[in-house]
Amino acid sequence: MDFRHRIAANAATVEAHLNAYIDTYEHQPVVDAMRYAVQGGKRMRAYMVIESAAMFGISMEQSIWPAAAIEAVHAYSLVHDDMPCMDDDDMRRGRPTVHKAWDEATAVLAGDALQTMGFELVLNDQAGSPDVRAELAKTLAKASGAHGMVLGQALDIAAETAETPLTLKQIEHLQNGKTGALIEWSAISGALMARADITPLSTYAKAVGFAFQIADDILDVEGDEAKTGKRLNKDADAGKATFVSLLGLDGAKQRARALVDQAEEAISCYGNKAQNLQDVARFAISREN
Amino acid sequence: MDFRHRIAANAATVEAHLNAYIDTYEHQPVVDAMRYAVQGGKRMRAYMVIESAAMFGISMEQSIWPAAAIEAVHAYSLVHDDMPCMDDDDMRRGRPTVHKAWDEATAVLAGDALQTMGFELVLNDQAGSPDVRAELAKTLAKASGAHGMVLGQALDIAAETAETPLTLKQIEHLQNGKTGALIEWSAISGALMARADITPLSTYAKAVGFAFQIADDILDVEGDEAKTGKRLNKDADAGKATFVSLLGLDGAKQRARALVDQAEEAISCYGNKAQNLQDVARFAISREN
Repeated sequence: MDFRHRIAANAATVEAHLNAYIDTYEHQPVVDAMRYAVQGGKRMRAYMVIESAAMFGISMEQSIWPAAAIEAVHAYSLVHDDMPCMDDDDMRRGRPTVHKAWDEATAVLAGDALQTMGFELVLNDQAGSPDVRAELAKTLAKASGAHGMVLGQALDIAAETAETPLTLKQIEHLQNGKTGALIEWSAISGALMARADITPLSTYAKAVGFAFQIADDILDVEGDEAKTGKRLNKDADAGKATFVSLLGLDGAKQRARALVDQAEEAISCYGNKAQNLQDVARFAISREN
Repeated sequence: MDFRHRIAANAATVEAHLNAYIDTYEHQPVVDAMRYAVQGGKRMRAYMVIESAAMFGISMEQSIWPAAAIEAVHAYSLVHDDMPCMDDDDMRRGRPTVHKAWDEATAVLAGDALQTMGFELVLNDQAGSPDVRAELAKTLAKASGAHGMVLGQALDIAAETAETPLTLKQIEHLQNGKTGALIEWSAISGALMARADITPLSTYAKAVGFAFQIADDILDVEGDEAKTGKRLNKDADAGKATFVSLLGLDGAKQRARALVDQAEEAISCYGNKAQNLQDVARFAISREN
């Protein structure tokens, strides 16, 4: 099975798992909004969790829990990020955003409950032994909160009103939190489940995270709106410094390729077992949405 | 030391712990907003955690972690609940709410990161053995999310636009989620840390939670605005059904006293050790704010 079929098959399995879990909640509009918010997307993070786990011989029955958890946390961040007081986006994945399809109060609560659901999922008894679950949840919290993703989002918002555009170093720091932290957690989760050394996967994920973000910035400039489902030149129009504005289009593409090489090198120690994660690294910069 | 001094001393210790933990984050406006949001309040939930733990001989060095965690989760819910799209409150604990002191984006992110911080705190290595921490975090998630607090908040919002006021049974269901779930977690946390039976504390907490909410409804009608720091008759003005509107003022007071009796009875099995939690039950209905 090639990479695109494999990631699509995994995405369907993860979505089914998320839906089944959401079905355990009392039926309310906020729960409908949660289900809506976790639909679609590439589920690259879930794929990384499952493939990282598989590399250590951990079954999908177990890894589906942290895989679903990271997608719930990612979905929560998108729901809140799209709100009028944040990025003010009406469309996401080609559909109205949660606050447009419902209202802002529902978006706040659905996002809040999706974050909690991430912890419910990763702490489910089937996600591993108690010490594995405690470690997964603790590292997930560190990656999601003011040490990780929320810090990146806060830096992103501060950058919008800053007098001077961010430097490359500042953008790297911002993206390391905003998108890097969850990607890193996804990649190391297999090693956490296997209680193995996380260093190779952590190095791999840091490079993939940056490559992914550079590709995002490139897509923002030369992507196809129909495929990305997002407005083109959104960041440029907002006057935001991006990897493309700082490195130039060619420079950004070169940097992304170098990062993919670094990522591949970092997990070469796992040999053929790392093939699927190597594919993710290359996918990060070849995708069209 | 009498109850009021004891709870005040505990509150100061918990606040110092929260501040010290918040100091570990990178200094950003969103982190300032988090620190602001966890200031003040009675910290009844933290007190219940510490006293529940003490009943089983668990030290405050350990119980301060889940105690701080529940206050972080409680604070997150208040920050989001105060937002214009939710309850639209400008004041909280006598000070401007987070979205007034900063802005809505900061309120969304500070609330998000405070929820995550709750999990960071409860999963800290010092909060117990890995299996205790996994159990504390798992039950905290269940109490906070769409199985608990967020469900209650969603029901509360739905009630505002409902054509008919809620029945007593519906209000109990709503409050069981909105305020009851976190209070119950606080009370049972000591038993979870000690791996003891949670049943007596769970029964106690359900009664205390309702008594606390009834007292809130009574304060909304006959409280002192200067002491509560909230607008009077807020719920009545909003046309919301409350325990007072359904049971009458005298009926509500009677019900609250009966619930306190039930709560005291439920933990009488612990004898003198339960004294401080018995005090909490009585305090729930005698407070002025």
